[in-house]
Amino acid sequence: MLPAEFSLIARHFAPLAGEAGLGLLDDAAVFTPPLGRQIVVTADAMVAGVHFPPDETPRFVGQKLLRVNLSDIAAMGAEPIGYLLTVSAPRGTADAWFAGFAEGLAADQRRYGVHLLGGDTTSTPGPITLSVTMFGHVAPGAAWRRSGAQPGDELYVTGTIGDGVLGLAAVRGELPDPDGSLASRYRLPQPRLNLALHGIVNAAMDVSDGLVQDAGHMARASGVALRIETALVPVSAAGRAAGAAFVASGAAGGDDYELLLAVPPDRTVALAEACAAAGVPVTRIGRFSLGPPDVTGVGVDGKKVPLGGGGWSHF
Amino acid sequence: MLPAEFSLIARHFAPLAGEAGLGLLDDAAVFTPPLGRQIVVTADAMVAGVHFPPDETPRFVGQKLLRVNLSDIAAMGAEPIGYLLTVSAPRGTADAWFAGFAEGLAADQRRYGVHLLGGDTTSTPGPITLSVTMFGHVAPGAAWRRSGAQPGDELYVTGTIGDGVLGLAAVRGELPDPDGSLASRYRLPQPRLNLALHGIVNAAMDVSDGLVQDAGHMARASGVALRIETALVPVSAAGRAAGAAFVASGAAGGDDYELLLAVPPDRTVALAEACAAAGVPVTRIGRFSLGPPDVTGVGVDGKKVPLGGGGWSHF
Repeated sequence: MLPAEFSLIARHFAPLAGEAGLGLLDDAAVFTPPLGRQIVVTADAMVAGVHFPPDETPRFVGQKLLRVNLSDIAAMGAEPIGYLLTVSAPRGTADAWFAGFAEGLAADQRRYGVHLLGGDTTSTPGPITLSVTMFGHVAPGAAWRRSGAQPGDELYVTGTIGDGVLGLAAVRGELPDPDGSLASRYRLPQPRLNLALHGIVNAAMDVSDGLVQDAGHMARASGVALRIETALVPVSAAGRAAGAAFVASGAAGGDDYELLLAVPPDRTVALAEACAAAGVPVTRIGRFSLGPPDVTGVGVDGKKVPLGGGGWSHF
Repeated sequence: MLPAEFSLIARHFAPLAGEAGLGLLDDAAVFTPPLGRQIVVTADAMVAGVHFPPDETPRFVGQKLLRVNLSDIAAMGAEPIGYLLTVSAPRGTADAWFAGFAEGLAADQRRYGVHLLGGDTTSTPGPITLSVTMFGHVAPGAAWRRSGAQPGDELYVTGTIGDGVLGLAAVRGELPDPDGSLASRYRLPQPRLNLALHGIVNAAMDVSDGLVQDAGHMARASGVALRIETALVPVSAAGRAAGAAFVASGAAGGDDYELLLAVPPDRTVALAEACAAAGVPVTRIGRFSLGPPDVTGVGVDGKKVPLGGGGWSHF
């Protein structure tokens, strides 16, 4: 680590450290786990030019980096605690980039009640490469798994699907986005924390790689068949305005950060009430059944609809 | 995440996952913290071309990545539990690279008793970029801090200093290394876990950025002056053979991963006994005192010796 890097850490990252981060001055952070709780941990990396445009506003990069990790904590039914951060940046990266990035982290630390616990800052001959490891806590045995779906469970999804891909197109200027709502969905996903769904859901996961692919993961992990009624998949007004082709790519694409939830039929009222209390829209889009563990699309006429790239032509 | 990436994770990384890693199939890992212990967490990133030569044997890359993080756990007086891993690799990275990298991780998982808990695999247009977040546990309040050194404490260091920088030169072919011992020191640092030093040391940290710089951190964090008797700094036989200039660069350079320990005079016998029991050499190299919080070098004649780049010409 070079002296210039200490200065950078002191200016931009040390102010983000909570008490457990020990001012980012020690070899590691120390925290006391909440009594009688299990620890939930997840890590995600983001690379400039892969996960965000190289010229993206650095504040949004910081916020998205935290939020994609918080979405994984939410998908386990856990409450967030804090995070570690590694930053590999080219020599000569503007100080303003780090300042904006840290502002984004600070804003979302306040929003979600987490603190920076530690990390590492290095140079790289490549693009800016970031990783966050996020910690949460959950009651013993209560973490939601994607493998818990049972035959007869209904499949629900929060929010709307496809806006992540549409938002990327909007950020790239490939799609009109007069009110900026699509770009905002791509840049600032809303991790679905604070949904009081313990005792209601049998399985959960977040939609980060695309609805079709992720729903397939849940079906296979649970060893059950899944039929998605494609006409029920919730699409935003901006998504509908963007047209069928984009919605199709959205359903096959990623970056939605909504939750997929498997819910027994006798708990769907409780689900609706809990989601309404949290102000989070939730929509039934399919059902699990005994059968080959995979996902099938079904249209309004009850006939099979091919899923995946270009398959959602009925929208 | 692309299907090819799932396959890569299933083949190379899922076999490394412990029970808490949930087979790397969920959004996050879940583990139960050891009862009544605090959690210690640290993260380090490694970039090809910065932290290791781009053509380095991938097995060594995996081992070093774990060991630099384990060294931070050791420096806090903690015991390791497990880790999360992010891998950003160029499209087209050979499967053999991932296989070798995972072999290195597997070998050191067995050696140090840790497991993979989760992580992320992405593509990058840049060089291979890796990060590990390592967890450990420690008795409440017992973690060693670098800020605990007191006036009158002796400064000790484990092992030998300078071999990290010499080893890099050997790996690059810039230095003869007939028995390969220097290259091995650079490639495979020995995290100083299993030193039973609780109740003995007042402060500790690992030497990762160079003895002079890191000792200065301890002095400043503790608010005390530090004099290092440069003639006492332990140098390996290979280091002595390499000559004065290399040793000087070694003392100013990094990658040693030894421990700096501040020990009150009345506990130095206990320190020696504990280190001998663990088979770890330890050497007194200086003393803390009341005064300006910084580090000063002193030669055998008691006169000041300039520290830092090129300053260690007396070796």
